[in-house]
Amino acid sequence: MKIIIIGASGTIGKKVTEALQGKHEIITAGSKSGAFQLDITSPDSIEAFYKRVGPFDALVSTTGSGHFGPLGSTTPADFKKGIESKFLGQVNLVLIGQHYINAKGSFTLTSGILSEDPVVYGVNLGAINGGLNSFVIGAAIELENGIRINAVSPGVVEDSPGYFEYFPGHEPVAMDRVVNAYVKSVLGAITGQVIKVF
Amino acid sequence: MKIIIIGASGTIGKKVTEALQGKHEIITAGSKSGAFQLDITSPDSIEAFYKRVGPFDALVSTTGSGHFGPLGSTTPADFKKGIESKFLGQVNLVLIGQHYINAKGSFTLTSGILSEDPVVYGVNLGAINGGLNSFVIGAAIELENGIRINAVSPGVVEDSPGYFEYFPGHEPVAMDRVVNAYVKSVLGAITGQVIKVF
Ligand SMILES: NC(=O)c1ccc[n+]([C@@H]2O[C@H](COP(=O)([O-])OP(=O)(O)OC[C@H]3O[C@@H](n4cnc5c(N)ncnc54)[C@H](OP(=O)(O)O)[C@@H]3O)[C@@H](O)[C@H]2O)c1
Ligand SMILES: NC(=O)c1ccc[n+]([C@@H]2O[C@H](COP(=O)([O-])OP(=O)(O)OC[C@H]3O[C@@H](n4cnc5c(N)ncnc54)[C@H](OP(=O)(O)O)[C@@H]3O)[C@@H](O)[C@H]2O)c1
Repeated sequence: MKIIIIGASGTIGKKVTEALQGKHEIITAGSKSGAFQLDITSPDSIEAFYKRVGPFDALVSTTGSGHFGPLGSTTPADFKKGIESKFLGQVNLVLIGQHYINAKGSFTLTSGILSEDPVVYGVNLGAINGGLNSFVIGAAIELENGIRINAVSPGVVEDSPGYFEYFPGHEPVAMDRVVNAYVKSVLGAITGQVIKVF
Repeated sequence: MKIIIIGASGTIGKKVTEALQGKHEIITAGSKSGAFQLDITSPDSIEAFYKRVGPFDALVSTTGSGHFGPLGSTTPADFKKGIESKFLGQVNLVLIGQHYINAKGSFTLTSGILSEDPVVYGVNLGAINGGLNSFVIGAAIELENGIRINAVSPGVVEDSPGYFEYFPGHEPVAMDRVVNAYVKSVLGAITGQVIKVF
């Protein structure tokens, strides 16, 4: 299986890459890292990326950032910046990628716990995650040729201790469980699911 | 209570306006209709609107549109247009409005059933609705001075028969129930809730 991993150098992406490599052809990508470069915030960059990489069987996205800061000082521009990265960046990987993916292929996006279990400063990321979860639910019923789509929604991951102070009382989740959620989406047969890992 | 209703001339907005007027000072608004005009897709227009209207106690938004069409031909630009209207338009009513609303005031936004119960062609609106629902969950824990925020999430409404063919098997919901959800949010005390009317 030819599997693209966008964000393969990241905290989560590098562990997903380790779990899938060996048995599959892995195409790593990032804005600066990886075998291929693209900027998910630019539809033109995404289109050029797919043209270079050619047909593929699975895309895993473990990328995208959002605004993290007080609601009281969040501006429309701050909010939109996150929307254009983690939300529209991942949506556009699918809108454009649906024209390049092989039959029976799959898309696996990354959302996160803040859609339903909020923390102070997390409203932009929460809204992004909620939008992504509903996007996969809606896209799954329209994708053709057996193409599937799921979102992995992790809690704060044990490998990201820098985030713990912003998630008081949240149980950090084991990276092995997070990695398994991506493996289940890519190698399994489910579609239209939000795979919660928390 | 001074209550702003954005989208007061619309199918839902006009019924919400009827239910609240008489006992309250109602400020109606739309892009062309109402006592005040604003374009929710423009943060500058929203800011100018609040400056004209002055301090207020409640904002109800029954407005915003999304892209409705096949996923296979939806472009990044189509998708973004809906995000900038129904999603960021309503988010920006809150981000900007939090600096103009009175203590103990409330914001009530409108999402919809497609976040969790998808229909063909509805992926953009579903993603918008999911983002809005998570936005109110996250914003509620940061708004200060007793300010509240909720979303009303209606199913397809009995007063919109033109939509029925796109919602096969969906039970149209009674407008009275939809109106009550807005009244509950504005005159009640709940916050951070998605009030489902379906
Ligand atoms: N870590 C957690 O605890 C946690 C919990 C829940 C959800 N999440 C979500 O999981 C995802 C990954 O998180 P992470 O902590 O693993 O992030 P990370 O360590 O910051 O890694 C981000 C990855 O994305 C790539 N990237 C960044 N900007 C890009 C762009 N514009 N275009 C293409 N690639 C880009 C980076 O590579 P380059 O440097 O080469 O660009 C890197 O490989 C995020 O969506 C995050 O919100 C994380
Ligand atoms: N109808 C349903 O069955 C249903 C079901 C679930 C959810 N919803 C949601 O409920 C909301 C209202 O739906 P509806 O059917 O009542 O809509 P509608 O009849 O089309 O009314 C829209 C209202 O918004 C105003 N408006 C439009 N664009 C605007 C802009 N850029 N800036 C400010 N105001 C603007 C319109 O006034 P002007 O013409 O003056 O701009 C009008 O008052 C929408 O978010 C919709 O997705 C509707």
